[in-house]
Amino acid sequence: MKNIYAIGVGLIGGSLALDIKKNNPEMIIHGISRKEATLDEALALNLIDEKAALDDIKHADLVIISIPVDATVKLLPTVLDLIPDTGLVVDAGSTKEAICKVVENHPKRRNFLAMHPIAGTEHSGPSAAIQGLFKGKTNIVCEVEKTTFKLQEKALKLFTDIGMRIRYMNPVDHDKHIAYVSHLSHISAFMLGKTVIEKEKNERDIFDMAGSGFASTVRLAKSSPEMWTPIFEQNKINVVETLEEYINNLTQFKELIKDDNFEAIFNEMKNTNHIKDILNGIS
Amino acid sequence: MKNIYAIGVGLIGGSLALDIKKNNPEMIIHGISRKEATLDEALALNLIDEKAALDDIKHADLVIISIPVDATVKLLPTVLDLIPDTGLVVDAGSTKEAICKVVENHPKRRNFLAMHPIAGTEHSGPSAAIQGLFKGKTNIVCEVEKTTFKLQEKALKLFTDIGMRIRYMNPVDHDKHIAYVSHLSHISAFMLGKTVIEKEKNERDIFDMAGSGFASTVRLAKSSPEMWTPIFEQNKINVVETLEEYINNLTQFKELIKDDNFEAIFNEMKNTNHIKDILNGIS
Repeated sequence: MKNIYAIGVGLIGGSLALDIKKNNPEMIIHGISRKEATLDEALALNLIDEKAALDDIKHADLVIISIPVDATVKLLPTVLDLIPDTGLVVDAGSTKEAICKVVENHPKRRNFLAMHPIAGTEHSGPSAAIQGLFKGKTNIVCEVEKTTFKLQEKALKLFTDIGMRIRYMNPVDHDKHIAYVSHLSHISAFMLGKTVIEKEKNERDIFDMAGSGFASTVRLAKSSPEMWTPIFEQNKINVVETLEEYINNLTQFKELIKDDNFEAIFNEMKNTNHIKDILNGIS
Repeated sequence: MKNIYAIGVGLIGGSLALDIKKNNPEMIIHGISRKEATLDEALALNLIDEKAALDDIKHADLVIISIPVDATVKLLPTVLDLIPDTGLVVDAGSTKEAICKVVENHPKRRNFLAMHPIAGTEHSGPSAAIQGLFKGKTNIVCEVEKTTFKLQEKALKLFTDIGMRIRYMNPVDHDKHIAYVSHLSHISAFMLGKTVIEKEKNERDIFDMAGSGFASTVRLAKSSPEMWTPIFEQNKINVVETLEEYINNLTQFKELIKDDNFEAIFNEMKNTNHIKDILNGIS
């Protein structure tokens, strides 16, 4: 592999580019973006070696798509049309069913590998890219059997070399599980932020009284709406289901407080403390 | 001030003891706890200089109460009975109305200062105590006018010396605001943890798919039920109100998704991104 094309050079695309270039200085990272200013920024930050356009993909050994998932669904068939037989296209989207679906009958389906590197921060854009973001993180790969073996092998080596653990899953299971451990967290944080902002018009009061606990719980409410709106749209059914369960649990907890059943409140929290053991190992 | 008595030598009491001793090596930190094993642990960790019992408080210059708020309400009148006229009692509870109420007519009310140092982690017990926990954090002081001036002055110097900013508030406002920026975050995190645990019986799946975003949002679900149950009980009315607003916001967000109104979903998140500016400065 020599010519890598990053479509999307923000937090995920930019960080992948940084790590891959570090491990493989001989590779050339070409950046593609809708916005010229974003490419200029990525170039200035040394995330990419060169600016490129969509047509250049015909020279690609590997294309990494890290853009909002609605844009991925629209663009992916075209990218696959352009990729040479020896090239591979991967995506990094937080939903997998719609993305796999849109290329299921594409004549070059075997040149595509669907993945979801589970890593990130609440920041976005080229300036959010950081080296080492993927170290020790999980990369979920979907429908691996549909990708040419030689191409998947090369790509997975690239991603394990930057520190990722590979895990295989079908797109339907991926979207169901990720709704719980990622999409719900984002909505939970966004609505927490909204509730507090609405109530506490005097921001000075929030600032003075909010501690690190609030900051941590609400952190994801800084995330990009451009990125997250299409994720909720594509994973609508699962997200609504998780939200219903979450709202039910909150309502039940509220009723227990109203009923002065503080023994039950204690037990709810004690049982949930078990999350400690589950989280051990997540940095 | 020479003899400091810490009733409760866990995360908050232990951390306060560490910082105060560091700044004032001539002071003697006496530890008091219901459990002998806790005191032994605090001694072994050098959080306290000596073990003590409740009766010894008659020799105290300062008593710092950092125990669950239900225990504080029960114990505080007795501690005030015991404190010499020249001594001061402070508490560090996360609720202020019930605590101020229980001593409002106490003959030694002027020897008590109600505070809430807004600092902490999700851990508890003596081993959770850390140096520097209060640096740059806010210490909310309630009903300052009810405390002897000379005593408040000495105590507040102690707390500003360890890096805290003092902010004055009445107990009713404190409990109302803190419900939003602290108590709600805890319930939000506990119920997020519960929802995910219930759904994902196979813990391996959670572990593999959960990223740092989930870890951050759910972090407070590791908190101590012993500490938090009485907080929710004492702040019941405010907590129920915040929960109702939070549940309403979540329900509305869910309905927008169900109605495919993703323009509104985008705007909800965009508006809440404003939390960035509010959080700047909270570490």
